[in-house]
Amino acid sequence: MSSSYGDHFRMTVFGQSHSPAIGVTIEGIPAGVTLDFERLQRFLNRRAPGNNDWSTARKEKDRPEFISGLRGETTCGTPLTVLIRNTDTRSQDYEELSHVPRPGHADYTAFVKYSGFQDYAGGGHFSGRLTAPLCVAGGICLQLIGREGISVVSRIAQIGTVFDRGELTESTAEKEFPVVDDERGKAMRDLIAEVKADGDSVGGIVECAVLGVPAGLGDPMFDGMENRLAKMLFGIPAVKGLEFGAGFSFAGMRGSESNDAFFLQDEKVVTKTNRCGGILGGITNGMPVRFRVAFKPTPSIAGEQRSVDLRSGKECTVKVHGRHDPCIVVRAVPVVEAAAAVAVYDALLQRRKELG
Amino acid sequence: MSSSYGDHFRMTVFGQSHSPAIGVTIEGIPAGVTLDFERLQRFLNRRAPGNNDWSTARKEKDRPEFISGLRGETTCGTPLTVLIRNTDTRSQDYEELSHVPRPGHADYTAFVKYSGFQDYAGGGHFSGRLTAPLCVAGGICLQLIGREGISVVSRIAQIGTVFDRGELTESTAEKEFPVVDDERGKAMRDLIAEVKADGDSVGGIVECAVLGVPAGLGDPMFDGMENRLAKMLFGIPAVKGLEFGAGFSFAGMRGSESNDAFFLQDEKVVTKTNRCGGILGGITNGMPVRFRVAFKPTPSIAGEQRSVDLRSGKECTVKVHGRHDPCIVVRAVPVVEAAAAVAVYDALLQRRKELG
Amino acid sequence: MSSSYGDHFRMTVFGQSHSPAIGVTIEGIPAGVTLDFERLQRFLNRRAPGNNDWSTARKEKDRPEFISGLRGETTCGTPLTVLIRNTDTRSQDYEELSHVPRPGHADYTAFVKYSGFQDYAGGGHFSGRLTAPLCVAGGICLQLIGREGISVVSRIAQIGTVFDRGELTESTAEKEFPVVDDERGKAMRDLIAEVKADGDSVGGIVECAVLGVPAGLGDPMFDGMENRLAKMLFGIPAVKGLEFGAGFSFAGMRGSESNDAFFLQDEKVVTKTNRCGGILGGITNGMPVRFRVAFKPTPSIAGEQRSVDLRSGKECTVKVHGRHDPCIVVRAVPVVEAAAAVAVYDALLQRRKELG
Amino acid sequence: MSSSYGDHFRMTVFGQSHSPAIGVTIEGIPAGVTLDFERLQRFLNRRAPGNNDWSTARKEKDRPEFISGLRGETTCGTPLTVLIRNTDTRSQDYEELSHVPRPGHADYTAFVKYSGFQDYAGGGHFSGRLTAPLCVAGGICLQLIGREGISVVSRIAQIGTVFDRGELTESTAEKEFPVVDDERGKAMRDLIAEVKADGDSVGGIVECAVLGVPAGLGDPMFDGMENRLAKMLFGIPAVKGLEFGAGFSFAGMRGSESNDAFFLQDEKVVTKTNRCGGILGGITNGMPVRFRVAFKPTPSIAGEQRSVDLRSGKECTVKVHGRHDPCIVVRAVPVVEAAAAVAVYDALLQRRKELG
Repeated sequence: MSSSYGDHFRMTVFGQSHSPAIGVTIEGIPAGVTLDFERLQRFLNRRAPGNNDWSTARKEKDRPEFISGLRGETTCGTPLTVLIRNTDTRSQDYEELSHVPRPGHADYTAFVKYSGFQDYAGGGHFSGRLTAPLCVAGGICLQLIGREGISVVSRIAQIGTVFDRGELTESTAEKEFPVVDDERGKAMRDLIAEVKADGDSVGGIVECAVLGVPAGLGDPMFDGMENRLAKMLFGIPAVKGLEFGAGFSFAGMRGSESNDAFFLQDEKVVTKTNRCGGILGGITNGMPVRFRVAFKPTPSIAGEQRSVDLRSGKECTVKVHGRHDPCIVVRAVPVVEAAAAVAVYDALLQRRKELG
Repeated sequence: MSSSYGDHFRMTVFGQSHSPAIGVTIEGIPAGVTLDFERLQRFLNRRAPGNNDWSTARKEKDRPEFISGLRGETTCGTPLTVLIRNTDTRSQDYEELSHVPRPGHADYTAFVKYSGFQDYAGGGHFSGRLTAPLCVAGGICLQLIGREGISVVSRIAQIGTVFDRGELTESTAEKEFPVVDDERGKAMRDLIAEVKADGDSVGGIVECAVLGVPAGLGDPMFDGMENRLAKMLFGIPAVKGLEFGAGFSFAGMRGSESNDAFFLQDEKVVTKTNRCGGILGGITNGMPVRFRVAFKPTPSIAGEQRSVDLRSGKECTVKVHGRHDPCIVVRAVPVVEAAAAVAVYDALLQRRKELG
Repeated sequence: MSSSYGDHFRMTVFGQSHSPAIGVTIEGIPAGVTLDFERLQRFLNRRAPGNNDWSTARKEKDRPEFISGLRGETTCGTPLTVLIRNTDTRSQDYEELSHVPRPGHADYTAFVKYSGFQDYAGGGHFSGRLTAPLCVAGGICLQLIGREGISVVSRIAQIGTVFDRGELTESTAEKEFPVVDDERGKAMRDLIAEVKADGDSVGGIVECAVLGVPAGLGDPMFDGMENRLAKMLFGIPAVKGLEFGAGFSFAGMRGSESNDAFFLQDEKVVTKTNRCGGILGGITNGMPVRFRVAFKPTPSIAGEQRSVDLRSGKECTVKVHGRHDPCIVVRAVPVVEAAAAVAVYDALLQRRKELG
Repeated sequence: MSSSYGDHFRMTVFGQSHSPAIGVTIEGIPAGVTLDFERLQRFLNRRAPGNNDWSTARKEKDRPEFISGLRGETTCGTPLTVLIRNTDTRSQDYEELSHVPRPGHADYTAFVKYSGFQDYAGGGHFSGRLTAPLCVAGGICLQLIGREGISVVSRIAQIGTVFDRGELTESTAEKEFPVVDDERGKAMRDLIAEVKADGDSVGGIVECAVLGVPAGLGDPMFDGMENRLAKMLFGIPAVKGLEFGAGFSFAGMRGSESNDAFFLQDEKVVTKTNRCGGILGGITNGMPVRFRVAFKPTPSIAGEQRSVDLRSGKECTVKVHGRHDPCIVVRAVPVVEAAAAVAVYDALLQRRKELG
């Protein structure tokens, strides 16, 4: 089903930007896992809005409320439902959206799909706010895969025309503004401030690596590790591109350049290069799983844009109100990590069955 | 399950490069559809090996044998199974692969996943040959979506360092070597000949457009049209990147450049630009669905490569024998079309249920 | 996944007897359906505890709280989550159950499955209380199928050794104690009072008919209408048998007695007898879908029973405390109707896709 | 999907009574399993037609042809497809069935569902012949569960008005005509001969026990062991009833009679009685899983029956031609075992994942 993900760790994300709450229902978490709620909250805070210059003015504390699936702080094996209340909603900002779609948003396509009954306030189920429950599920998965020595790190690789330099490492990922080269990070923040001042927005790229993944995860042909990550990552609003390892650069390469030769290191098969992004034939090879995700600019911009009034059937203009991020990329970093963690944990459960 | 795809049109691809046959089992084709077998064969011939300079010397006629699901030439509503016999197999070429993995291939990861019991001959289930049954399923879907006015066109956008120029159109897609600019096509073919002579291989990019798609297809958050296409396309061997519309170029854009404004044309809502690739919020907007797929170079190259003997646990070298494509991209064009057709038809069945 | 049901109307039931709330997350309800909340509440009241002599003393108002999926009172097409708060819980009644399983309950098997981490209070996720969210989902489906002229009726066919007489009709189903023969109903209630006085419990049979079902629902071989209903009905706690139409009586029949001959009535194909229970080859034939469900006696009885202390590994005795129904069958009637409604609605969505 | 079963061992049954072949495609068999083909053939022979007095005159050798999924005689981890050719078909026997449905058969419902495009010859996909590929899948699962000490035994409990006496044991299950009391078995065979002579048919009951099942299988609420078995067993043509343990007899019991008390035996928790059929709360308790399956009489009988001509829209009569079993119950015994084996193995794979 559409807002669900996973074969073994099965989560369903629910809620709209302005419904009483948003949340997630999860099946498949093993019994007996004691959750670290503080660590989960710290993870959610990285995504929460209103915390800094580059995010929307909407303020939400994003405190998860556990409804079921626990006995005390430990999972009991049955479905886990978590809510996050919506508090700072201003539905009056959105009346016009019921019939005048904003360019670049899902307003028009939601109108068609739900025959005019879509919950348009704040973008409804299409709001970036729905990444909060995804981060709850992902934050739990990060704890689950962490027990098996797997971690997820990421950085901002590009914002607008500013590229980060250097190699992604664990220490990069711990920064508040995760780039290798802090000077470039400063340039990115300046660019965000500039587009914000212009009432404009800007896109970017997040690079992510999953470290410590065992060889053997992923199930070809259509549940390979790339397919699993792709199905998940394109569920994050604004994602329009995805590449693994050398990705699009492979197109310009020859096989003699692109193959990663095998070596032995401490009796383990390794590759020194990692152009394949840790995945061959859809299955992890034990090297880090590396991928890059392209985000389009937030479609909410200040100026007047051309649109169509679906009620009157006439062309018109629209001005976007409400509170928005000038650049979604920064807050998207933990969302990409959450998404990766869910995809990897689900593949891990599949693998566990095989190893029996 | 891993070699299955689709919620409504559900196909399972089976077989190995050297098993008696490969094939596909399909559930969910409506009863009463008369198939055009000649058209299907023509489509399969575009992918079949041994037909021209740029493909492997292995010759397979790829004649589909319909086992079930038909009454005469018309579907009867119950599962359809189609076989394609493997005839020109030379398993002796592959003995060494059971324990010395070829760099860039799935040999090593298959060894780990299947605990040494993988069918290594010819790459087993990981062989590009498995795209033949995918083309059977896709060829059927092309006929099914064709009845609703939907078609799929594609071109080679890049091979190695040679880029095509101009805009993809239906007439481009009909060419034997589908590029807009035939001069560039000539350069691509020359490059393939060159790398072949070098015993090397080369990657590339296929661009694809689905025309005539109605607005409203795709099911957010995780079964959006992008997610559906991605889960399918990353199932094609050698695919390492995927982008929709402007894709990775979005990263460098501002919102004021990237949004596609809405207009009316013959009382239909349209956009003049199509940077979003026909998809907003995971749902089609009625414009062509456009995407680009990056292929890595065929990993089979002539020279000696570094590897590891998994039996003796020692580093070693490997030389790849067997017959291979110097550039998989040309034969991949119909495979991408097949993949797109399956994904779109499955989404269409989902949509049909909603419209009731 | 285990606590989920449905391919198109997909519901996940969550919660434990003593968790903050129980509830259900539903995907697949079409947009634009205005729900009748009063009708839903009346339906839930039929199942709610504490309303009469034959049910547990636990009092719960069972007021559904809609968290998502609506705009006002109308569905917006995205996932719907509903909570029912647990208020009257007395967890201290259940401490011993963590390690001394009650015979006939799921205490022991839950202990094994969840490795001792099960939420044992009040039976946890295995409590009959979890039928409340099932009734929320079912109550919604009853409204959805009602729009297509389908209704569900049922009666108590047997309690202990007392059988109802006569034919199930719509007027029977509307009674507070739904039996055709009210004298037999009186005898059933007397029997319940008697076993209650004895500190004992008693089993029974519910008969159900789905009226107005169109021919063509159900998907052989394994998603036939019988399979679909069976998968759902055996999810109701205490259900141990299920038969369609003549069911087990078929075993003693000859074909010349058991076949339902076809006739025409108002140009519609009908049968006069309905021994097949409205289903042939897994597909509905347009006659009422009829089935009977056997419930075992509530395992909670007053006397001392033999058990095993799983902590000390010694045999012991157990006395069941807490508040319980002497006969679950009466409150199970609307649960069976809810279950049938969900199964039928899900099949109907599948059918809609075929009819396109 | 409808002709598919299983979450982990996923099989899709395909074919029609008169298509070139019938078969099954299976995903989820672990790599490295060496199959015993002779044992599989012996199992298939128990179901195969034409072997004795009580089965149809149609002769089929039912030799499975393995198309994929093996390297030699050992599974390689990727999908396994097996064909069984249809050889002894006489389609001319069935022309009338395209528009005059036989009472008790799926002819009418298939006509409605597939809008007149159903493959009516020999009952198409609804033929009992489709239980042959189910037996291939089940025969493989019997070997897989056998490695874990699990076996499936069954007997004919009733044919027409003749009941078997005594308790089902492993030695019973090995008989050619599996009943405890051979005198009653003789009476059953006499009854079958009698109804055959009358051109009539007769129903019956198969009792089955799965021995050696570990505690902890089954996934409540809707994938409990009862739900899993039910979804599978109602897929066998002619099954109309199913009960676990005491089943419908529970209705007449009191809790003080029906609960199975717990004891210790060799430090293992056991019950001396097994009224619950080895399942509590949907989860196995380590005792044998016991259930009974009711079959309706074969609907094919010699006399003239009332029907409707769907082409002319007039009432008419129909006489059934073709070759048929006077009593399907005897040949259904291995089919029930196959079905149980598949359901148990799939649950076992799920359990394996939990135990990690």
